[in-house]
Amino acid sequence: MGRWEPDAEGRFRAAAIDLFAEIGYEQTTVAAIAERAGLTARTFFRHFADKREVLFHGSERLQAGMVDAMAQAPTNARVKDLIAAALKAPVDFFSEERRAYSRRRHAVIVANAELQERELIKLAKLTGALAESLRARGVAEPDASLAAETGIAIFRVAFAQWVGSEEHRSYRAIVEDALVRLRAFTED
Amino acid sequence: MGRWEPDAEGRFRAAAIDLFAEIGYEQTTVAAIAERAGLTARTFFRHFADKREVLFHGSERLQAGMVDAMAQAPTNARVKDLIAAALKAPVDFFSEERRAYSRRRHAVIVANAELQERELIKLAKLTGALAESLRARGVAEPDASLAAETGIAIFRVAFAQWVGSEEHRSYRAIVEDALVRLRAFTED
Repeated sequence: MGRWEPDAEGRFRAAAIDLFAEIGYEQTTVAAIAERAGLTARTFFRHFADKREVLFHGSERLQAGMVDAMAQAPTNARVKDLIAAALKAPVDFFSEERRAYSRRRHAVIVANAELQERELIKLAKLTGALAESLRARGVAEPDASLAAETGIAIFRVAFAQWVGSEEHRSYRAIVEDALVRLRAFTED
Repeated sequence: MGRWEPDAEGRFRAAAIDLFAEIGYEQTTVAAIAERAGLTARTFFRHFADKREVLFHGSERLQAGMVDAMAQAPTNARVKDLIAAALKAPVDFFSEERRAYSRRRHAVIVANAELQERELIKLAKLTGALAESLRARGVAEPDASLAAETGIAIFRVAFAQWVGSEEHRSYRAIVEDALVRLRAFTED
């Protein structure tokens, strides 16, 4: 097997989520993931630190995308525009092609307390990164933290809806709906 | 030493926070907390499951207070009134007398990754309880979850301000300010 494998990462991810669903997260070994993917454990460790990272590998990209979207917003953008820009940044990341994987990933996480904690930690880090990005744009405290926390509050709900089994709307449509709802219950 | 000790809980809390600050959370034993408090370890375990619970004992009371405040709001209360009621419920809990303890507690938690995770889990549970309380009042999804997440977003920021070393305003004043700020950046 050569050092270079086309879409090794995607193959490991698909193999891992299959095994997590079939035999459980705890019972799944890196060796079994590699075997299912038709790759080696050595190749696995070039892509992921451990089996848990297969599930959380996307969060760095998600965070970078949200932070970039805020940084690239027009200089006259208001705080609400910056929150909306961050929330809409992952519209391509959370694509229809990805939804089936995201649903299965969500089911694995919901079934495991340690993974739920990991998810909470990742979201707390994401909140910190957004607040930092807002401060870098000149938004003062406590508005930077309030906006970042509120943005992530919306993200949690929108993401949970998007992976819901009965949900057909796109991530973008769900986020736009959530922004309208939030505005409706904060105004007089 | 008798079975009944006036304010044993408060004495354990004061002793624990002293030791966590002096020798570190990891190094502090229940035996040392009991000795410092002038009480027995046996009495300690009648009040707390372990040393970690000394720090998180208040969260059940906080949660119950917020949920009750929502339940007792007038029947015509709007979602924003319910969020405000939940946020203002702990104005007596987060009193001036408590602030010094809360600041020390906050410093202990910030210094320990495991305790930070525990704090995130408690806040996630609190969010779930508020969403449940909103649904029980007839607020439909996704509004119940959006309102609960947004309320806790505000709570996180307001609480962090309240325990800030330079902060002199009351918890109530900080929450009222945060509600105004949130409204300012969600409206057009």
